Amino acid sequence: MLSPDSPVGIFDSGIGGLTVVRAMQSLLPSERIIYFGDTARVPYGTKSQVTICRYAHEDTRILMRHQPKLIIIACNTVSALALNVVENSSNGLPVLGVLEAGAGLAVERTRNGRIGVIGTQATICSNAYACAIGSMAPDAEVYSRACPLFVPLAEEGFIDHPATKMIAEEYLEELLVHDIDTLVLGCTHYPILKAMIREITGPDVTIIDSAEAVAESARTMLAERGLLSTATETTPPHLLVSDLPQKFQSLYRLFLRTSEVPDVELVGTE
Amino acid sequence: MLSPDSPVGIFDSGIGGLTVVRAMQSLLPSERIIYFGDTARVPYGTKSQVTICRYAHEDTRILMRHQPKLIIIACNTVSALALNVVENSSNGLPVLGVLEAGAGLAVERTRNGRIGVIGTQATICSNAYACAIGSMAPDAEVYSRACPLFVPLAEEGFIDHPATKMIAEEYLEELLVHDIDTLVLGCTHYPILKAMIREITGPDVTIIDSAEAVAESARTMLAERGLLSTATETTPPHLLVSDLPQKFQSLYRLFLRTSEVPDVELVGTE
Repeated sequence: MLSPDSPVGIFDSGIGGLTVVRAMQSLLPSERIIYFGDTARVPYGTKSQVTICRYAHEDTRILMRHQPKLIIIACNTVSALALNVVENSSNGLPVLGVLEAGAGLAVERTRNGRIGVIGTQATICSNAYACAIGSMAPDAEVYSRACPLFVPLAEEGFIDHPATKMIAEEYLEELLVHDIDTLVLGCTHYPILKAMIREITGPDVTIIDSAEAVAESARTMLAERGLLSTATETTPPHLLVSDLPQKFQSLYRLFLRTSEVPDVELVGTE
Repeated sequence: MLSPDSPVGIFDSGIGGLTVVRAMQSLLPSERIIYFGDTARVPYGTKSQVTICRYAHEDTRILMRHQPKLIIIACNTVSALALNVVENSSNGLPVLGVLEAGAGLAVERTRNGRIGVIGTQATICSNAYACAIGSMAPDAEVYSRACPLFVPLAEEGFIDHPATKMIAEEYLEELLVHDIDTLVLGCTHYPILKAMIREITGPDVTIIDSAEAVAESARTMLAERGLLSTATETTPPHLLVSDLPQKFQSLYRLFLRTSEVPDVELVGTE
């Protein structure tokens, strides 16, 4: 039986999905969060659909042990390629993916119907953003570009490095020539580079952060089902990871913009 | 019983280790090669030692099914952190790691005893190159630098891109101020960027390619044990991978500098 006191489960291929945790904390500070990051097998975005589906199933099972009231797929690659796997593995729980939320917000915000999408190789090749946007707004035109270097550049802390700017200009140029007025950041790492991306797109392009979009969807869904937490205290997120690399603490601070790193629990996959 | 007809087993976290396959083919064209790339869990270089040791054990078991006469660890990260795991998992087979081979060649080639080493975060943090070099040449001075962006830049094909040059200059600058005369490429991907690296270091710095070094060590070891293949025909390498990503073929061509991509067998890890 789902209860307002149950936690919200969030998972990602690594710790990029902490941007979703941050958005949830900001919008729904009373919610208890269980987060799983598959840091032993990160990244997913360069791997095949078969492997991504297997990992998505295992990630869901790990969250299910904590009896969540909702599962949020913070990973765009899993949202794009394995949403149905998560739905099938979660015993009828409500499931939200960042991709659908980001696509929905893009459709809502665009004025000229020309939407750009950037993401990992696997997300972009799946064409899932274009399909999701097309199903909501058949007349919209979607221009996509994989930006495989953005994740390593963000993780290396090259946030406002001239090399990052040079690469970003090259990636974004072919979207901007199509006169897009909305750009979806289709990867949880990309909000880290948002300021630089905005500098390149200029102020007339609306940037859609999928993390914020999925937090909005979660609020609506929980409210509709009477499942919003009634807690008056904020509890720090419960973090599970499949590997604890040396860079974990610095990455945690980068994504959550906080100096406090809570305890982390190491769990095995499979 | 080891036989000259048995294959040489080579493994890597992904397909970067194909640079070792290339070096082996060039030096020992009669040898039959079994290669395993753990493409479902690549990269290792950002993960913890515990996880890297577990993966190294599983990778070795996969090669053991093919009864090799020698195991070559093409992955610098595994050589640095889990050489003993591979030795313990391979029933007394001879084992060679790229790291020891690269360190040995650097000691042989240096004139002023000042050696630079570049590699992944995990390889550099392990300090394993400095230890290996120090045990052979106690007076040598070793200067190390992790270059985490080199792998994604090489895989993205940004081989002679100005952004890559800018990043490489930044990475290498702090080694070059120490007047190194030898630079070890301590990651199987880095030979792809060798021309650019040489442009930055200048012609007076000897660049050590660990792939070539380990092929030399393999020839010496097989000859000493009477295990050199006597085959007169060259057979293409037998390739095993744990995932078959979309980019596999283009990466194969990049690393092996060939247009022929042989059949690839997909195998599960434990």
